[in-house]
Amino acid sequence: MSITRVTLVLGGARSGKSAFAERLVGAGEKPIYFATAEALDEEMVERIRRHRARRAARWTTVEEPLELVSSLSQHASPQSVVLVDCLTVWLGNLIHAGRHIDTETTALVELLPTLAGPVVFVSNEVGMGIVPENEMARDFRDHAGRLHQALAARADSVYLVVAGIATALKGNAL
Amino acid sequence: MSITRVTLVLGGARSGKSAFAERLVGAGEKPIYFATAEALDEEMVERIRRHRARRAARWTTVEEPLELVSSLSQHASPQSVVLVDCLTVWLGNLIHAGRHIDTETTALVELLPTLAGPVVFVSNEVGMGIVPENEMARDFRDHAGRLHQALAARADSVYLVVAGIATALKGNAL
Amino acid sequence: MSITRVTLVLGGARSGKSAFAERLVGAGEKPIYFATAEALDEEMVERIRRHRARRAARWTTVEEPLELVSSLSQHASPQSVVLVDCLTVWLGNLIHAGRHIDTETTALVELLPTLAGPVVFVSNEVGMGIVPENEMARDFRDHAGRLHQALAARADSVYLVVAGIATALKGNAL
Repeated sequence: MSITRVTLVLGGARSGKSAFAERLVGAGEKPIYFATAEALDEEMVERIRRHRARRAARWTTVEEPLELVSSLSQHASPQSVVLVDCLTVWLGNLIHAGRHIDTETTALVELLPTLAGPVVFVSNEVGMGIVPENEMARDFRDHAGRLHQALAARADSVYLVVAGIATALKGNAL
Repeated sequence: MSITRVTLVLGGARSGKSAFAERLVGAGEKPIYFATAEALDEEMVERIRRHRARRAARWTTVEEPLELVSSLSQHASPQSVVLVDCLTVWLGNLIHAGRHIDTETTALVELLPTLAGPVVFVSNEVGMGIVPENEMARDFRDHAGRLHQALAARADSVYLVVAGIATALKGNAL
Repeated sequence: MSITRVTLVLGGARSGKSAFAERLVGAGEKPIYFATAEALDEEMVERIRRHRARRAARWTTVEEPLELVSSLSQHASPQSVVLVDCLTVWLGNLIHAGRHIDTETTALVELLPTLAGPVVFVSNEVGMGIVPENEMARDFRDHAGRLHQALAARADSVYLVVAGIATALKGNAL
């Protein structure tokens, strides 16, 4: 299977978006898993364990909670496919670390045309609920929504996953 | 109209998912309405009243807040079509009653191939908002998302309803 | 480009729904922007500024936080295209002002067949998250969901925008 250069896989919580993206990427040679989540609490340790158990041993794992942009530019190559799982967790880490979000997301978007190999980004759709009362949550979903728009505009393929079923919103790499 | 054996109808709050599922089921003979909601407060009494007013008198109603699995296995038959409305309310009832959720949802999924007749499940898509601060709400949406994935993988048809308009994500029974 | 009489554009927060609707409307002659948002705080002032900067100078802007129904009936004309941005903000304003929501939304729905020209409505999909704990938020999303269903049933075209990509749920005016 050949996958397009830049793919964006969106979906709600427990929508099966990561499993779908792993199937997309895993069929190729030398898949690289970029994990943005840190195992800070038991819930997250368990989630990471499940994700890991699902992937075959031949995957390489890179843990990158913050320096996604520089790390991606190093690891992307024509011989491998990179899966970034996921962007909303990365955004949360950036906020938590006090980074300037627009600077980081702009750098990620500008990196895309220079990438040496294909990348599949997974991210949570977080904008279809009630406006959060909490200002930080509102800012978070604004950042996520704007990043999704910017990536989708430049991606070759965009999917929305609902109940484990992926619908192509753009392109059709399957 | 013939409907497929197992159908899953997903949609947000007030998306028209129940009305869509009622049209799917109600065109057949001997429709059975499985209500999982209990009339515990005024808001719910009013919602149940509206749902009931919309359905024709020839519907049979079964109220089943908890024992969905055993009750479904009894009522499903080749001569009728069962509408289960809805799974997220059932999940909420199970949590409230202290039941072990994975045991119940696994039993429901394993029941599917043994059902004697067609069933249409309605459920709320709850995973496309901001991560809830409340741990119980996070667990709830994880359970809902995993159940939706498991049912969708085994369903003949899956629909997503937005603003009263159903889009087939899988199959095409209409 | 000719656009159909009544169009509904739904999407989550920062989904690109307004920009999509502006492209739909702005290609026509004499576009009119109906802004329902009031610049009550800095966050909103900034959002309005961004929306305004994106639109060309030839747009006419009407600020109408509450009297949408009467104002629309005055401004709609065969020589222009009206963009109402957005309905969920209007609903919020009505609730805040103590108006009777069903009266207002029914009046809007009944206005549609009498409109003298095309109108594009933008609104937030708010029903795909966890049930809000707050009763007012639950009521709000019920009102929004019912209004979306009523408008979608009568609209010539309905779009769902995700990550800046519009999918036609009904009609196909593009």
